[in-house]
Amino acid sequence: MTDAQTTLQELKERMAQFVRERDWEQYHTPKNLSMSIAIEAAELMEHFQWLTVEQSKNLSPEALQDIGEELADIVIYSLSLSNFLGLDLSEVVLAKMEKNIRKYPKDKVRGKAHKYTYYQDRNQESGDRGQDKSEP
Amino acid sequence: MTDAQTTLQELKERMAQFVRERDWEQYHTPKNLSMSIAIEAAELMEHFQWLTVEQSKNLSPEALQDIGEELADIVIYSLSLSNFLGLDLSEVVLAKMEKNIRKYPKDKVRGKAHKYTYYQDRNQESGDRGQDKSEP
Amino acid sequence: MTDAQTTLQELKERMAQFVRERDWEQYHTPKNLSMSIAIEAAELMEHFQWLTVEQSKNLSPEALQDIGEELADIVIYSLSLSNFLGLDLSEVVLAKMEKNIRKYPKDKVRGKAHKYTYYQDRNQESGDRGQDKSEP
Amino acid sequence: MTDAQTTLQELKERMAQFVRERDWEQYHTPKNLSMSIAIEAAELMEHFQWLTVEQSKNLSPEALQDIGEELADIVIYSLSLSNFLGLDLSEVVLAKMEKNIRKYPKDKVRGKAHKYTYYQDRNQESGDRGQDKSEP
Repeated sequence: MTDAQTTLQELKERMAQFVRERDWEQYHTPKNLSMSIAIEAAELMEHFQWLTVEQSKNLSPEALQDIGEELADIVIYSLSLSNFLGLDLSEVVLAKMEKNIRKYPKDKVRGKAHKYTYYQDRNQESGDRGQDKSEP
Repeated sequence: MTDAQTTLQELKERMAQFVRERDWEQYHTPKNLSMSIAIEAAELMEHFQWLTVEQSKNLSPEALQDIGEELADIVIYSLSLSNFLGLDLSEVVLAKMEKNIRKYPKDKVRGKAHKYTYYQDRNQESGDRGQDKSEP
Repeated sequence: MTDAQTTLQELKERMAQFVRERDWEQYHTPKNLSMSIAIEAAELMEHFQWLTVEQSKNLSPEALQDIGEELADIVIYSLSLSNFLGLDLSEVVLAKMEKNIRKYPKDKVRGKAHKYTYYQDRNQESGDRGQDKSEP
Repeated sequence: MTDAQTTLQELKERMAQFVRERDWEQYHTPKNLSMSIAIEAAELMEHFQWLTVEQSKNLSPEALQDIGEELADIVIYSLSLSNFLGLDLSEVVLAKMEKNIRKYPKDKVRGKAHKYTYYQDRNQESGDRGQDKSEP
């Protein structure tokens, strides 16, 4: 399991070297990289576009391979943006997780999809109607 | 520097626990998570939407703080998708980096933005006209 | 029904006036507008992020109102981009529709979602396996 | 100029026929179509990803052709979503334009890019610092 041994710092350094060796810092500006991440995110979505939510849980090995590559692209550009901005990525991720833990107390949001007002059969969950911006 | 000590595995486990404790596995399906990543990527882009590329390189501390949070959201959903799919994220990232190293040989692409046909002043770089899909 | 009486030209002119009166042509460049459209598209998606495909077909009047506004934003920026580029939007739309009619012959693609290789239960549709890029 | 003669209604009807003849209403659900619009928006962005804002204003005829097709895809899916939801698209567009006219009074926002706090050289525009969410 590579994930158990690989730090964000190692990945960031590899990406920095890749960009530096190609003299691509001039293109890897924050504005451009934000577009790149969004473009790769759309390529990831493309795999799921016409599937039901259920079908998306049951992928072929070939699909999984392609999807892994798209996800890699998203992470790669995120690493490059962190490099450009001098961001400690783990730090902001851990801080955001803490914020989410406080924002969505487990006893209060368990099993709930929210945005209840957004579909008509909300009657069954009438108690939660006011709460509309939390997110699974 | 947290990045120097934090493995992808640690982040993935924290995210898995967050989702499990809220019984949110039912929402964190691949189709939905691909949408979530794209939505967060757009929120990141929103910060750069009206800036010039140059301005995007010169951000205030407050902007940097907000941008870090948006980037964190992208990574958080990417971790959750990796968890759902059983993906070793570092492995796919490192493999994609190797693929990019071969695809964009540093001596050939150095300093070039490609997609040359896409703007009129391409005359100066006429030798590269055929090469249109490489990426900084 | 306003749609029966409103031409694309009328909408484009109104948008051009809005931009001109605010001296916003300087921001409404193609690069920026492409980001704006993507950002608004993500805001539209946000309404459907945690819904099942079925739930997304059964929206409350309030949701429908919000969704209409997001869709309006996408169209508004598309009009502005057409203005900047001097594009006859109906013309490109009609041309693309013709192209799609030829690309997806109705007798061949009827009722099929394609990208069959992308989920495991593709066995039932084995005859179509090679065809993977068509789109409903 | 086709735009001067073509109503939204005509385009919507053509699209409805295209979908109906392929029995694709089952895929053209709001959730899926919101993804489709976002995917096409990203394909549009891809053309501008590595360009400066200036370069994006100076496109080759070939680029313009491709960009027109991507924009057409965005409009096509927007028409299909309007059809599914029974939305009068011109009506929501005109209403949103009116809302924007009130939200961004021309005498107040003329020539301003806003989000001033988001780049360091904001000092010169210090009077506008509080105003951060308006949009060109």
